[in-house]
Amino acid sequence: MVFKDGVLSLIDQRLLPHSLKWIECRNEDETAKAIRDMVVRGAPAIGVAAAYGMAMATNPDHAANTLKGSRPTAVDLFNAVEYMLAAISKGKNPLECAIAWKNSIEESTRKISEKGATLLPDGSRVLLHCNAGPLATTGYGTSLGAVLMAVKKKKIFVYVDETRPRCQGALTSYELSLGGVNHKVIADTAAGSLIHNGFVDAVLVGADRVVSNGDFANKIGTYPLAVLCKENNIPFYVLAPLSTFDFSIKEGKDIVIEERDENEILQFGGTNVYAKDTRAFNSAFDVTPAKYVTRYVTELGVLDKISGNLRTHKEKQPIFQKGR
Amino acid sequence: MVFKDGVLSLIDQRLLPHSLKWIECRNEDETAKAIRDMVVRGAPAIGVAAAYGMAMATNPDHAANTLKGSRPTAVDLFNAVEYMLAAISKGKNPLECAIAWKNSIEESTRKISEKGATLLPDGSRVLLHCNAGPLATTGYGTSLGAVLMAVKKKKIFVYVDETRPRCQGALTSYELSLGGVNHKVIADTAAGSLIHNGFVDAVLVGADRVVSNGDFANKIGTYPLAVLCKENNIPFYVLAPLSTFDFSIKEGKDIVIEERDENEILQFGGTNVYAKDTRAFNSAFDVTPAKYVTRYVTELGVLDKISGNLRTHKEKQPIFQKGR
Repeated sequence: MVFKDGVLSLIDQRLLPHSLKWIECRNEDETAKAIRDMVVRGAPAIGVAAAYGMAMATNPDHAANTLKGSRPTAVDLFNAVEYMLAAISKGKNPLECAIAWKNSIEESTRKISEKGATLLPDGSRVLLHCNAGPLATTGYGTSLGAVLMAVKKKKIFVYVDETRPRCQGALTSYELSLGGVNHKVIADTAAGSLIHNGFVDAVLVGADRVVSNGDFANKIGTYPLAVLCKENNIPFYVLAPLSTFDFSIKEGKDIVIEERDENEILQFGGTNVYAKDTRAFNSAFDVTPAKYVTRYVTELGVLDKISGNLRTHKEKQPIFQKGR
Repeated sequence: MVFKDGVLSLIDQRLLPHSLKWIECRNEDETAKAIRDMVVRGAPAIGVAAAYGMAMATNPDHAANTLKGSRPTAVDLFNAVEYMLAAISKGKNPLECAIAWKNSIEESTRKISEKGATLLPDGSRVLLHCNAGPLATTGYGTSLGAVLMAVKKKKIFVYVDETRPRCQGALTSYELSLGGVNHKVIADTAAGSLIHNGFVDAVLVGADRVVSNGDFANKIGTYPLAVLCKENNIPFYVLAPLSTFDFSIKEGKDIVIEERDENEILQFGGTNVYAKDTRAFNSAFDVTPAKYVTRYVTELGVLDKISGNLRTHKEKQPIFQKGR
């Protein structure tokens, strides 16, 4: 993601790994469209794009509404917009504030990746779901960032869930290849068998919204992995920056889950797999209860659990309980 | 599946629901190829095709080896071949024996469908994985057969797992549509969230091999569903004819699991989704331990559990313990 001369340039994630094309956004509407169409995806990356969208806006209130309306589940978007609105209302320079947001995400994800890497012993076989690497965060990544950091010193093997329906496993595989990390892609259906048969030492995921009690929303398919980890005594780690936390919501059941186009299920590459008139149900995220989480990894450290009920961004720090 | 004038005609399941084409097999080699290439799939249907393959053979021992070498996991294939070998060695008419095998499967799956239907209360919302309907069995079906039988008298709604990597959910959706059953297709990743949020009243699956202690192999993705059902107190039913039972194996860990072509994962419709040189791991089945099974449904009835250690086909009956 690059902002230069008033233009936000985004890598079109939908075309990777086959072609590397950039899409230019010149205002908040184009930015909102790029978020909605999943040109840019990944909670932290969406937040950064939204911050730039706000910086390009002539009417901050209109921009805030437009950007907030683009996708409902990842809270980084809302946190970034609120941060920008507050800054603009105080007369600060919008672009400087957007850059500060981006820099803070870069710094947070670097810390998360470093701390996450410490959780992976040499020789670990890790399973990753969806994509939470540099593309999805604009920084170092979260779950994938931890792997990329770990392989600098340790031997790590990765199983990559293809992550239907959008197959973000292709992005994870791409980023692992760039990082020289040994990995294999699997169907989402195969994760259980690998975990059950002792081929996986840890599952690492990112998050789209972590709420007060530690429940969190993430890409559809995350909850079953958490249950499988518990059933087989495998650690299940959630890696996310504070920008992904939402303490205005107490429990996971109150998170709004985005339902997307049925054709994401029914078609492959624009071709119908199913008979005409077949219907599909396509929820983009699921909610995993806190009880399944072994550790949360944020820029603050590796935490046993999330507790408390913090209301403002500034007050966030005290609510975390430090991990062992 | 039709056998006429010495030719076995199989619907090419790979082309459904878009076109209905038949493939003709004139000997055991062509039959084995059709099984290997998944023209015909579903454990009971493979068994019936193999019985006809044996009936067309001039050299029964060669035919037995060829057919047994086509796919390793579904035991119906092996049971059908052994049955035919024994019949041929006793001088019986091979074609009559193959027809008898087919008829017994038809009768078994009718009983299974009727008994399975009694497990589904009016208004049930059922989740099906893979395809275990008329196409997969040559008869009435097993898990899907129970649904097709139930909807004659009750209102049933079905969530259909797309069942990556081969997307046999397309066959299930097709057969449900033919039966007028209301359903929606979901990504395999979405089953957990639906079960967790109370949208699913029961999960029904078929089987490819059920062993002495009740462990069973079935399409990859079955084991996670079983774990999700246990975690959320949802019944998990396994429906399979006796032809799918293998009492020569004591525990699920000894079942041979077929590993298939990586391109089933890496490509959609012949197009690479992943970067060149990406590797995949593609096991076609997983094993679910008996402890996760709420009931087994066979032609003998609805059973609490499988116990005993029966060695021959004839002696099978006593090993089952009747359900409540």
